[in-house]
Amino acid sequence: VSSHSASEAGRVLARVRERRPRIHCITNDVVMALTANVLLAVGARPSMTVDPEEVGDFVAAADALLVNLGTLDDARRRSIPMAVSLAVRAGKPWVLDPVMVDVAAQRLALARRIVVDGPAVIRGNAAEIAALAADTGDSLDDDTGDASEAGRLARARLCVVARTGAVDVITDGTTTATVDAGDPRLAAVTGAGCAAAALVTAFVAVDSDALGAAAAALLVFGVAAMVAAESAGGPGTLGTLLIDALHGLDDGRLRQWSDGR
Amino acid sequence: VSSHSASEAGRVLARVRERRPRIHCITNDVVMALTANVLLAVGARPSMTVDPEEVGDFVAAADALLVNLGTLDDARRRSIPMAVSLAVRAGKPWVLDPVMVDVAAQRLALARRIVVDGPAVIRGNAAEIAALAADTGDSLDDDTGDASEAGRLARARLCVVARTGAVDVITDGTTTATVDAGDPRLAAVTGAGCAAAALVTAFVAVDSDALGAAAAALLVFGVAAMVAAESAGGPGTLGTLLIDALHGLDDGRLRQWSDGR
Amino acid sequence: VSSHSASEAGRVLARVRERRPRIHCITNDVVMALTANVLLAVGARPSMTVDPEEVGDFVAAADALLVNLGTLDDARRRSIPMAVSLAVRAGKPWVLDPVMVDVAAQRLALARRIVVDGPAVIRGNAAEIAALAADTGDSLDDDTGDASEAGRLARARLCVVARTGAVDVITDGTTTATVDAGDPRLAAVTGAGCAAAALVTAFVAVDSDALGAAAAALLVFGVAAMVAAESAGGPGTLGTLLIDALHGLDDGRLRQWSDGR
Repeated sequence: VSSHSASEAGRVLARVRERRPRIHCITNDVVMALTANVLLAVGARPSMTVDPEEVGDFVAAADALLVNLGTLDDARRRSIPMAVSLAVRAGKPWVLDPVMVDVAAQRLALARRIVVDGPAVIRGNAAEIAALAADTGDSLDDDTGDASEAGRLARARLCVVARTGAVDVITDGTTTATVDAGDPRLAAVTGAGCAAAALVTAFVAVDSDALGAAAAALLVFGVAAMVAAESAGGPGTLGTLLIDALHGLDDGRLRQWSDGR
Repeated sequence: VSSHSASEAGRVLARVRERRPRIHCITNDVVMALTANVLLAVGARPSMTVDPEEVGDFVAAADALLVNLGTLDDARRRSIPMAVSLAVRAGKPWVLDPVMVDVAAQRLALARRIVVDGPAVIRGNAAEIAALAADTGDSLDDDTGDASEAGRLARARLCVVARTGAVDVITDGTTTATVDAGDPRLAAVTGAGCAAAALVTAFVAVDSDALGAAAAALLVFGVAAMVAAESAGGPGTLGTLLIDALHGLDDGRLRQWSDGR
Repeated sequence: VSSHSASEAGRVLARVRERRPRIHCITNDVVMALTANVLLAVGARPSMTVDPEEVGDFVAAADALLVNLGTLDDARRRSIPMAVSLAVRAGKPWVLDPVMVDVAAQRLALARRIVVDGPAVIRGNAAEIAALAADTGDSLDDDTGDASEAGRLARARLCVVARTGAVDVITDGTTTATVDAGDPRLAAVTGAGCAAAALVTAFVAVDSDALGAAAAALLVFGVAAMVAAESAGGPGTLGTLLIDALHGLDDGRLRQWSDGR
């Protein structure tokens, strides 16, 4: 965590609070409430319908789109490609969170189909990024950039890939940033990664530099988790205090925390 | 907040705790858990299925029905009109929460169709109430009562309209009550308004005076939010402490808080 | 709560933390987040899709299956029998939580159909167990074992029945254990019983003695609730602190709490 990136993250966060982007989320049933609360905590305005008949109205009203493949079902299988097309045609950024594509073959197939439509960012854990990258590698010259699966996937899909974990890696295949923040107990908060991807969506909604915006969002999320972790007695209170910390985070606190490390 | 209305609210709250009404909620996927917890905190008994094949059994067992239009989908489009008809025929009150009808044309159309079936209360924010009122105004003589969109809608639909916001306005088109309680950070707690509408449903289940019951429910909700806000560090803890405060609220505390303002 | 059962429960809990079983949950929309957080708090790995096209992949990857009949819908009516068959054929234990079968006729019919497929444990409240037991009684000689409805159901279905309440009763129809832990305010935490059933599923995933595993899970859940209740100001904070307590619980604390009663 450099103080430079903290000050940049603070600027993007301030822009989110000022512009209050509308973020339409097609996300899974488990994490809807946490995702909405994370977005509201930074001033963004979430909507969450997954219905194919309604999704058009909501994408039309939104500034950016989040597509999370968890709890995929008939409604989502129909609305996701439609919502992605509408967002792309309207020039609105969208973010892909390929939840558990390493476990479910159908999800992987859907992810591979829609990823052609140029997401601004793909956010996943190591196993999900590896599954998505598996059909990209061979024809690329990996000497030219980030040789990891994240790097290969980013170059193949011309997008930013954010592989989150103990240390987050954010890359466009050429330039790579890392964010070393957060708290290990976040792994026991269901939907923490999904909510981080929603925050990335809010940040790319107000900043056309997807790499910078994604890194800024993950830094903000990670620092908020560190603030929350100071008072948290476990993953239950951590999830609740994370919302408080995101709500209270500003440029000054962000720099202070980042410098203190 | 007058001490009279607080003492009236305390009486209705005590009746909810004593009778433990069953409230069937057809509500959106984002707010189900918070809604159920708010109802349980005052002693009501929630059920939440949206399935058209099961909804009849649950409405039959319920004392009142909540219809919230968020995350509308095929199942809800079929079950909502059915559930409303069953409730009306059985003489059970129902409450409409027209979530985001100002954004989605289909929801607005559905809301206009079912609102003919006489909800006890419509609870919405200013934009939702305005959208619902838009086709009612012209033929009414607004000199006879509340000239606001809430007032017009109430007279046109012969029901109570509760427009919630910084100050809640509750009107039947002739008589108007206001509730000035709550906390600004509630706007960042996803589902707070939806949960308030569920509380209104529990109160109209035990009190046939819909205007008084709705005002009582919103006062109870607002005072609980003020109690919670005293210890809350942000919207995360506010949402959790709101449940504690609702659970602990009784007539005495309600009057004490209301008098203290 | 005997010190012996606490030390046995501590052993099973330690095994869950070590083996990190994958638990596929077909559960209701209200309780998904709490259920996932309870499983994560003890080190288990939850997945939650209810989609008939995907459920096979997830059951194949899982160590045990939870079937909760809340918010039953078309997708769940199709995926539940399929998931149960797959689990049974693969020799994986499954747990049935027959939510509100006493209210909804379709759920009761579905529960009776799948219960033939040998769940390891049925977990329900008194009304749900009574509804499920209603077609079993007459032909059994109740002198030979537990004469309660739980006992009859257990003998008829050759499984363990856990009837949870102020005191939990766990029986295979011959041997009966009781767990006297928990906190009365748990009744106001939506999904607490459902989450307890998920914990039972994680415990039977690592222990073939279903009676012991179910009693151990309910003791762990109840002691965690007692730890949480010490600092909880109401059902809101109780639900959050329960996750912290489960996360922090180990053999030592479990014995200490159990002994202290």
